[in-house]
Amino acid sequence: HAGSGQSVARSHSTDPSRMIDTLLRRAEELGVSVEFGIRAVQLLVEAEAVVGVLCEISGALVEVRAASVVLATGGFSRNLELLERFVPHMANAIHGGAVGSEGDGLLMGWKAGADFRDTPYVKGTFGIYPGDDPREGGTGILAVYKGAVAVNFSGRRFVDESLPYKALGDACLAQEGHLAWQVFDQQTMDRDDPDVHIYWFSGRLATGLLETADTLEELADKIGVPADELIRTVEGYNAAVRGEHLDAFGRRTLSGTEELPTELSRPPFYAHLSGSSVLATYCGLTVDPETRVLDVYGEPIPGLFAAGEVTGGFHGNGYVTGTSVGKSGIFGRLAGLAACAYASDAAHV
Amino acid sequence: HAGSGQSVARSHSTDPSRMIDTLLRRAEELGVSVEFGIRAVQLLVEAEAVVGVLCEISGALVEVRAASVVLATGGFSRNLELLERFVPHMANAIHGGAVGSEGDGLLMGWKAGADFRDTPYVKGTFGIYPGDDPREGGTGILAVYKGAVAVNFSGRRFVDESLPYKALGDACLAQEGHLAWQVFDQQTMDRDDPDVHIYWFSGRLATGLLETADTLEELADKIGVPADELIRTVEGYNAAVRGEHLDAFGRRTLSGTEELPTELSRPPFYAHLSGSSVLATYCGLTVDPETRVLDVYGEPIPGLFAAGEVTGGFHGNGYVTGTSVGKSGIFGRLAGLAACAYASDAAHV
Repeated sequence: HAGSGQSVARSHSTDPSRMIDTLLRRAEELGVSVEFGIRAVQLLVEAEAVVGVLCEISGALVEVRAASVVLATGGFSRNLELLERFVPHMANAIHGGAVGSEGDGLLMGWKAGADFRDTPYVKGTFGIYPGDDPREGGTGILAVYKGAVAVNFSGRRFVDESLPYKALGDACLAQEGHLAWQVFDQQTMDRDDPDVHIYWFSGRLATGLLETADTLEELADKIGVPADELIRTVEGYNAAVRGEHLDAFGRRTLSGTEELPTELSRPPFYAHLSGSSVLATYCGLTVDPETRVLDVYGEPIPGLFAAGEVTGGFHGNGYVTGTSVGKSGIFGRLAGLAACAYASDAAHV
Repeated sequence: HAGSGQSVARSHSTDPSRMIDTLLRRAEELGVSVEFGIRAVQLLVEAEAVVGVLCEISGALVEVRAASVVLATGGFSRNLELLERFVPHMANAIHGGAVGSEGDGLLMGWKAGADFRDTPYVKGTFGIYPGDDPREGGTGILAVYKGAVAVNFSGRRFVDESLPYKALGDACLAQEGHLAWQVFDQQTMDRDDPDVHIYWFSGRLATGLLETADTLEELADKIGVPADELIRTVEGYNAAVRGEHLDAFGRRTLSGTEELPTELSRPPFYAHLSGSSVLATYCGLTVDPETRVLDVYGEPIPGLFAAGEVTGGFHGNGYVTGTSVGKSGIFGRLAGLAACAYASDAAHV
């Protein structure tokens, strides 16, 4: 399908947990041993080279020596202090990244003098149902890309809903309560796609995450926004769709594609409460093309490699949908190869 | 006088170069030797303790050993790469900080594993004449706090001019060309104060930095903004001053004081081209109350102290006018005392 910001269909929906299962199975076939329940505490550094990791195993600190170390600890979307330090308004976001995304590897790298980049570019993804609700699978829905408008608690639109979902995330964080409603009609519901999480609207209806009503007035009452404002908002939006005037926020398409917005006119109407969730952090340690971690003077830190979300310098300001998975897979493999080559080089052992 | 954001007069205007001369003279009296023309390249670190500085003296690298080191290298307002890394829109600011503000000390600290904070809070000061003009002494003028309006190249206001000058700096950076005109009349010129750089309007007139005209229309032509827009802007502003409606940007006072805005009505009229200049960077290394530099795990880095602009955690989001000088003076003294006490402690030598 055409993901956010794509002018043609370039996205293949994937199930990341199946991807990880496949990689894990292959690693086991190759005789790789994966140890769980061991916390990496700090890097071991001798004569400015990384020579292993200080680990916590069953409550005891153990020095695990290694010829090379790959940091692959993910980001820090669950570390509120680090998030606020770099992007203060993310204090108001939902913190929905993977459990354990505490920035441990970032701190280990910094302690060893590593450089870092892209810290201002942490963004939240729009469309996530707030409040740690077990029915929220983590992806949210983006009905806005299939015809919904986003309105704040005053019943007013505040953004061109066709923008990338990270830009919508920032716009939503600036609203009252840092939340918004995606409001849509049956036409958008009919564009439901159970194969793509973010477009599986019927799934949300089935689990009760959608408010629904036969009129906009009734819907407004249910979601607690002023009915006259919501009706005025939708009338203005529909008039722009009909070409009577330019859209108040410049919306011209459904998403980045050429598909045109449609009127919100066919009952029943639906509303989905939506926040912005920091799912990943897109910034981190500076690495060279061989995944060696560089220090603040641009020199490689001997024995230290990094891959995935713990590294910066890849996404820049404009996150492109799907690139987190690609970044981890491709640079993870490169880091493994580079760390092995380094370890095999007799000069370092 | 009442500085930006102060509800009563709390500011004493000072001449920082005279202050430095006084301190330097006193240091010489005490037998302190100050060496110029020596570049600190990197910290010397042994067994995780700082034991001196690698220096460049007449082109040769020399290890200068010391029982303790105080980083007092200032900020990085002249280091465009670091500025853009933390606050991307500062690429469009004027870079008017002290020559040599390249962030050297920050890099030295990071290389040693130091923690840091407040990187999102780098701001530009509004009111600086752009283009490295020798007539711009570095402080700019803030005629807005004495009655001017700020208009962009379209002749429109864009901000409540009574806000702190750092907030005005951000607002100005968002305008076309990242510049604005401070437009005022003779009433504001009469509030001229040659003792306070930012209010010394007659000085700017004398050096030719002000455009002047007998009518707003003529002034608009001189500064190249649409005359009809500028006239409409001033008429709307004046009507709000007379209480006929609320000000379009919520302005209620001249600055943070209770002094009320006045109409722009008495010719001649004046205009000062104004940009936002990064004069200092307000973020940096994490120190404890004894000015010891802390690593990313909150532990002091033995032998390393820091004071002044190279440290973070002091100004927060809202810079208060004058606090750079106070921060340097007070914490500089504390750092000197702490570094001496550390060096005197036999355990470290």
